[in-house]
Amino acid sequence: MSDRNEQIILATRPHGRVATSHFRLVEGQLPQPREGQVLVRNLWLSLDPYMRWRMNEGHNYAEPVELGAVMVGATVGEVVTSHHPAFHPGDHVIGNLGWQSYGVAAAAELRKIEHRVLPLQAYLGVVGMPGITAWIGLMDILAARAGETLLVTAAAGAVGSVVGQLAKLNGCRVVGVAGGSTKCLYVENELQFDACLDYRSARLEDELADTLPDGIDCLFENVGGPLFDQMLHCMRDFGRVALCGMVADADAQAPHALRNLRAVLVKRLHLKGFIVTDHPQRWRVAQNELVKLVAEGRIKYRETVAHGLAEAPAAFVGMLAGQNFGKQLVKLC
Amino acid sequence: MSDRNEQIILATRPHGRVATSHFRLVEGQLPQPREGQVLVRNLWLSLDPYMRWRMNEGHNYAEPVELGAVMVGATVGEVVTSHHPAFHPGDHVIGNLGWQSYGVAAAAELRKIEHRVLPLQAYLGVVGMPGITAWIGLMDILAARAGETLLVTAAAGAVGSVVGQLAKLNGCRVVGVAGGSTKCLYVENELQFDACLDYRSARLEDELADTLPDGIDCLFENVGGPLFDQMLHCMRDFGRVALCGMVADADAQAPHALRNLRAVLVKRLHLKGFIVTDHPQRWRVAQNELVKLVAEGRIKYRETVAHGLAEAPAAFVGMLAGQNFGKQLVKLC
Repeated sequence: MSDRNEQIILATRPHGRVATSHFRLVEGQLPQPREGQVLVRNLWLSLDPYMRWRMNEGHNYAEPVELGAVMVGATVGEVVTSHHPAFHPGDHVIGNLGWQSYGVAAAAELRKIEHRVLPLQAYLGVVGMPGITAWIGLMDILAARAGETLLVTAAAGAVGSVVGQLAKLNGCRVVGVAGGSTKCLYVENELQFDACLDYRSARLEDELADTLPDGIDCLFENVGGPLFDQMLHCMRDFGRVALCGMVADADAQAPHALRNLRAVLVKRLHLKGFIVTDHPQRWRVAQNELVKLVAEGRIKYRETVAHGLAEAPAAFVGMLAGQNFGKQLVKLC
Repeated sequence: MSDRNEQIILATRPHGRVATSHFRLVEGQLPQPREGQVLVRNLWLSLDPYMRWRMNEGHNYAEPVELGAVMVGATVGEVVTSHHPAFHPGDHVIGNLGWQSYGVAAAAELRKIEHRVLPLQAYLGVVGMPGITAWIGLMDILAARAGETLLVTAAAGAVGSVVGQLAKLNGCRVVGVAGGSTKCLYVENELQFDACLDYRSARLEDELADTLPDGIDCLFENVGGPLFDQMLHCMRDFGRVALCGMVADADAQAPHALRNLRAVLVKRLHLKGFIVTDHPQRWRVAQNELVKLVAEGRIKYRETVAHGLAEAPAAFVGMLAGQNFGKQLVKLC
């Protein structure tokens, strides 16, 4: 174990599109755990769209990352030193230790991975925060029922791919929207959605009409932007929308202005914003079910892996542009 | 009884702002009721914002009024001839007989006013569709609880005035938004809202912040447009929005494009579009409660009355511009 701690800090705040120049790789001190704390060597870092919002000034639903501070992020790591009786060196833990090689956290901020049946990094993706977001959004927020038609955007992504597969297992008709034919074919052939449409298609409006003759009962929205406007047109009367992400606006100078709000009234829609961390009481049941389904091969997943912390900024920029395929990870060791 | 039937028809479809020239007064035949039907002489006509949308081409939540057809509208009238055993000449009935002196309807389309304790026209306003809209929106859609802060737009209007008074009776803190100081003073002094802000005020943003230091739990939205954008900023986390009307867009060439959709996600809002006619099973309980509260003087109301069918178009145009004060009616006889 070296006493070097590589870190990626927020160097400047982006206005509009984020670039690798907004980050800086620095070398920090190895942090020292105090009483009740644990020192963790990070093995995997999760990259997620929400991080883009944390780079902006001003309160969002969480405080922004300070200039010069280490970027926030979920991690899986290995305990190096423990000053808490519940953790021992070698334990694998999930935490939010950020974009760095080592981190220190209070025991209460870490969850030990026990009875592990999946690769470590799956606990950051398909059975981690993104998968649990999918599960809670589908089961609790949308409460999608068998026979209903569900549409999910960013269908090949870490959240969307789980939403659609869970909905299929629950008897829904599932249509995805993704970027490019490779992702769409994967969603249809591997993930077994009933259909997947390419949002870049010039014929998208017609394709939506053909694929959704009776409209959408449940919309799981990960993207926002002009696509969301179009989706509101496709909703059935009394349809439900779980507004989970608005990545289309993440890099925009100004947010997309929604023209079809009136559809919410005319179609009597229910539109619910939700954030997975509001539902801690549902994490365990969601994760247990997801682990079982993934282990049985009934939920599939893909990962895009960047190697080494120095690659994290480029991987993050690429992810926001849709260049990843499935869960975007950084392998740190 | 003459055999003349004055009618106002839709002469041309407005594109943008509606004018009296879009209507035409014509003289039709007195309709003849068939078996099971009732001939009604209309005494009062209700003017409501939804009618503006019915003047447009294309399906809304109901079919448009055909060009040359009589404008739709709720009426209170007196039975002239009945070919149904449940109705007798002289009975007072509520129906949707439109902008005309006489109308014919099947018995099932009429409701008899029995045990009348309020003036006839109140059954088109404070205890009619607008009042029932307020009741259902507050009780069922928002489910506002004592101690919560409720904001209602178009607070001096037929719906908004009832929303706020009911919410006060239910223990809410109630803030209204209305157009002009006369309406605001009425809402504060007569209707006893905790506050009423003038949306035309140059200081509205500051006034909202001062009046709502802890934000809005429940928003009853009757207006839409830029004001709704501003209101989303004022919502508390986990707030609820009943989207009841969007009169701001009614006369617009293009709808206002909503910039703050992201607030729905960040604040985890629930936004529900609703239309009162979806809830027929709640009409009777709502109306009974409203009649009782109005008769006891616990809910107050105002009316703006135009005299004679020929005045209906101008009254309607004025209402969309906010020139009415309380429920806009046309007295037909």
